[in-house]
Amino acid sequence: VHFLLHGDFDHVARHGLRVESPWGDFHLPHVHAHRDPESMPPCDVTIVALKTTRNELLPQLLPAPTRGGGVVLVLQNGLDVEAASAAVVGAERVLGGCCFLCSNKVGKGHIRHLDYGRIVFGEYASDCREVTPRAARIRDEMVAAGIDVEASEDLPLTRWRKLMWNIPFNGLSVVLDASTKELVEDADAVELVVEIIREVHAAAGACGVDIPEQYIAKTIDVTRAMVPYDSSMRLDYLQQRPMEVEAIFATPIRRAHDRGAEMPRVEMLCQQLRFLDARNVSRAASSRQLG
Amino acid sequence: VHFLLHGDFDHVARHGLRVESPWGDFHLPHVHAHRDPESMPPCDVTIVALKTTRNELLPQLLPAPTRGGGVVLVLQNGLDVEAASAAVVGAERVLGGCCFLCSNKVGKGHIRHLDYGRIVFGEYASDCREVTPRAARIRDEMVAAGIDVEASEDLPLTRWRKLMWNIPFNGLSVVLDASTKELVEDADAVELVVEIIREVHAAAGACGVDIPEQYIAKTIDVTRAMVPYDSSMRLDYLQQRPMEVEAIFATPIRRAHDRGAEMPRVEMLCQQLRFLDARNVSRAASSRQLG
Repeated sequence: VHFLLHGDFDHVARHGLRVESPWGDFHLPHVHAHRDPESMPPCDVTIVALKTTRNELLPQLLPAPTRGGGVVLVLQNGLDVEAASAAVVGAERVLGGCCFLCSNKVGKGHIRHLDYGRIVFGEYASDCREVTPRAARIRDEMVAAGIDVEASEDLPLTRWRKLMWNIPFNGLSVVLDASTKELVEDADAVELVVEIIREVHAAAGACGVDIPEQYIAKTIDVTRAMVPYDSSMRLDYLQQRPMEVEAIFATPIRRAHDRGAEMPRVEMLCQQLRFLDARNVSRAASSRQLG
Repeated sequence: VHFLLHGDFDHVARHGLRVESPWGDFHLPHVHAHRDPESMPPCDVTIVALKTTRNELLPQLLPAPTRGGGVVLVLQNGLDVEAASAAVVGAERVLGGCCFLCSNKVGKGHIRHLDYGRIVFGEYASDCREVTPRAARIRDEMVAAGIDVEASEDLPLTRWRKLMWNIPFNGLSVVLDASTKELVEDADAVELVVEIIREVHAAAGACGVDIPEQYIAKTIDVTRAMVPYDSSMRLDYLQQRPMEVEAIFATPIRRAHDRGAEMPRVEMLCQQLRFLDARNVSRAASSRQLG
């Protein structure tokens, strides 16, 4: 396994990676760390775990590790986030997936895993509705490495199911400055969360993705059972980094709108997040100038 | 003029009232200050300027100053906020009005007036659609005192017009932690504000109150021309006081719903405010316990 790193390169090259987890902490003192994609070998599978707000870098990042003909597995939040990778290597070489787990990067080369651990992925090519042999092989390798992974025949279904969590919980955790625990313990917040999930569920349906009704309640139940968690979007916001508003909110809204489905609450959340994001980014810029 | 005061009584009894205003500052060193309604004389007009969150006090506050048969003028934000006063003195003795002005209480006995100054009021009794002689007389007395006041033939119209400002700007200023200036200068926030105003405008229509379409744009224009302003709800929130969510949000939502009009964005704002209000009130309680 090779790691391409940016701000963490020096630290990881010297100290390796540290992972804390309720399933057991571990430390990888020596990892193949790269500062530059050109030093990477051709890889069988290139996992894209970049924030979607930096997808404009993919034309520089992907050619080197994929030069041997390997595939790209896009593990980013949002809808149709694979398109940016597909533009570089071709849609037929792309798989996408969602991480149904709670983990935060808490320091350089330092990951804190908090709860759950499932990754679900599938083929990106829109005409493919099966678990291909290469997807099965990636799954088997990951299972052998102890990862809770599932190969999906239906990537859009997987993505919309994840959006049913990301849209309410990422969005409201930022706008209301709240952890998932605070949201699921307040009656008004839960009522709003459920209404938002219903809008996402209906939008998925309008886009031809039929998610069983019971996933609405399940999304809340899973979150109730979760340790108190700061969503990735809330951490981005608190650390004055750009938020993934386009991938997680604007693209689903546009897709739904194209199919005649309106999502007024999700749109409002998107507008609120854009306001907060613009102010946050400009505050970050002025504090950098002051620093 | 007699003033009934609670927390500010000692200060005002000793130092009077201080008003800062772009129209000229002034100081009233001696005012008729009362700590207890029982010490008040019978008043011709009793102005209710209490927060609606304390309307449960009205049965104790109103009987003394109204015992001579005088009327009550309710200058509170929200919809049908006169009902609580009407329950004490009877609907036929109640007038209601809205303050289209920017002022904040910034200290004990210390008011800072920032912009605009208009008060519009009218009869509360639902069958009354005219400027009654008593309303005209109150208007004339206020005009003689230099107040920019207008007697309205249509109190529900006045109230819904004020809600077209209060609902978006009170609500979003709290949820987005923003001044009116920040909101009207951001394109996404303005888009959302306009959508919310349209919902309020449509709800008014469903309740039989036809507000000319041009008031939608006018509400934004007035706010653009306004000095940067912290809405009363935002000040309440920042000072950990209960917010007027029921009067300004929940009642209009209920009325609209009863007439078959839905307000999804206003409802969402109401749910967000209730979440923030509950957390704020519980934080205020725990900091009082710690203190």
